[in-house]
Amino acid sequence: MKFVRYGPKGKEVPGVIDSTGTLYSLADVVKDIDGDALASDLPARVRSIGWNALPEVTTPPEGGWRWGSCIARPGKFVGIGLNYADHAKEAGLPVPTEPIIFLKASSSISGPTDPIIKPPHSTKLDWEVELGVVIGKTARHVSVDEALSYVAGYCVVNDVSERNFQMERGGTWDKGKGYDSFGPTGPWLVTPDEVPDPQALTLWLDVNGNRAQSGSTATMIFNVAQIISYVSEYMTLEPGDLITTGTPPGVGMGFKPPVFLDVGDVLTLGIEGLGSQRQEVVAWSR
Amino acid sequence: MKFVRYGPKGKEVPGVIDSTGTLYSLADVVKDIDGDALASDLPARVRSIGWNALPEVTTPPEGGWRWGSCIARPGKFVGIGLNYADHAKEAGLPVPTEPIIFLKASSSISGPTDPIIKPPHSTKLDWEVELGVVIGKTARHVSVDEALSYVAGYCVVNDVSERNFQMERGGTWDKGKGYDSFGPTGPWLVTPDEVPDPQALTLWLDVNGNRAQSGSTATMIFNVAQIISYVSEYMTLEPGDLITTGTPPGVGMGFKPPVFLDVGDVLTLGIEGLGSQRQEVVAWSR
Repeated sequence: MKFVRYGPKGKEVPGVIDSTGTLYSLADVVKDIDGDALASDLPARVRSIGWNALPEVTTPPEGGWRWGSCIARPGKFVGIGLNYADHAKEAGLPVPTEPIIFLKASSSISGPTDPIIKPPHSTKLDWEVELGVVIGKTARHVSVDEALSYVAGYCVVNDVSERNFQMERGGTWDKGKGYDSFGPTGPWLVTPDEVPDPQALTLWLDVNGNRAQSGSTATMIFNVAQIISYVSEYMTLEPGDLITTGTPPGVGMGFKPPVFLDVGDVLTLGIEGLGSQRQEVVAWSR
Repeated sequence: MKFVRYGPKGKEVPGVIDSTGTLYSLADVVKDIDGDALASDLPARVRSIGWNALPEVTTPPEGGWRWGSCIARPGKFVGIGLNYADHAKEAGLPVPTEPIIFLKASSSISGPTDPIIKPPHSTKLDWEVELGVVIGKTARHVSVDEALSYVAGYCVVNDVSERNFQMERGGTWDKGKGYDSFGPTGPWLVTPDEVPDPQALTLWLDVNGNRAQSGSTATMIFNVAQIISYVSEYMTLEPGDLITTGTPPGVGMGFKPPVFLDVGDVLTLGIEGLGSQRQEVVAWSR
């Protein structure tokens, strides 16, 4: 099943989409699609209630249809860097021998069609289509073999990055990864039973209608299970935490000459079976 | 006034200490000492209710006295690196020309006397006494002049760090900063009226009773106002967010030869007017 959050920004309500594409409200079942809901095995609760007993949503919410991020703001928004060998090469950086961990500010998460806000001093605004993994159970020091049992679902993430802030301003990458709107997530949180192999998904991203990124999770350096196991050695992963697992080649800084985003540019991106996103770049205003 | 959270881990209740050291319960006033409470101007609410109308706490909570972190788990736990010139020198790293930002996993926050858990593969566990700053109002692109008006209070933070994970394992510092128990915070969240000059506070840290760190916030490279203004350019600071502002000289990796923590070691640390902490290092167990 596919969990969603819909409605005005900050007032999203929980829902679930069945295999026919019908949307049902979960407003009477859980407060939100968040860590608490996922830790209580929400898919089992939906199955136990039964699709027929859930109210079908047929009228748009206040303000019209809008999808929020498919999970509520996570406790942690973990990023994995340079996890596709070809992307490491285009970034001019060595292929990592163990996963690179960074953290995105949890406040950067946004809906899949919300605009991307260009920061006032941004000069190198860039895109990264990535497979997002949402944690369903507390994970500390978990083995690779058991790691996938901690996954609540998968989703599309655009790990929006400002390369000047990330790589030319001293310190860690976090400076270029955490601005508001730098984490479009969704539209759907797809449960693992609908993603039989997370390492066989095609990813794509277009800039103004022109294909920039295309790849497959088959070429990840560290797969999802290895990532979860590894991260769980350095911090406790909790229900509702989001890990974005790295991007395939084709980001703006990899073009020769590099291409960066400006106000008015439009990104469309998606992952096979996990839905698609669309964002327009807008100027910051107070 | 000094806000506190007391009681068993995960079940802390909010309280406030007056100028005579008397503890009053805020359980009927706010759910927790968190972003919502701080955004609602909690000090003004306490003054409006009046000390005499608050219930004095005289009996210990279930399990005996224990102080939790003085704020609930923050949305963001922001770290500033190498913010004292002498500490940059002992770390063998250049003095930064602009603040170094990293993020601690929000799940690393702990109480001021909770044990520090040594991770299974830790070889270079280290300490850092730091001035913590808690945000009271949403801050985006705020000027240095107005920055201190966004502060809800100050506290002691031990920015516990694993140097091997932080600096020798590829990627960003975050890998060595986010383990559970790596963020002792408190005991008190002291309101700004009781901290007339945040740049004139002495800090100290002892390892097994021997002075290791002693310094003053007067020697920060970037002061609290500059830090808040700067961070607010890269991510939105929200009520309840915690910034830890860097450490003075005397960390373990700066000793010649370096000194790192092992199970059984005891840290005591504090900041003038903000209280003190004590942590024993314990082994990880599942």
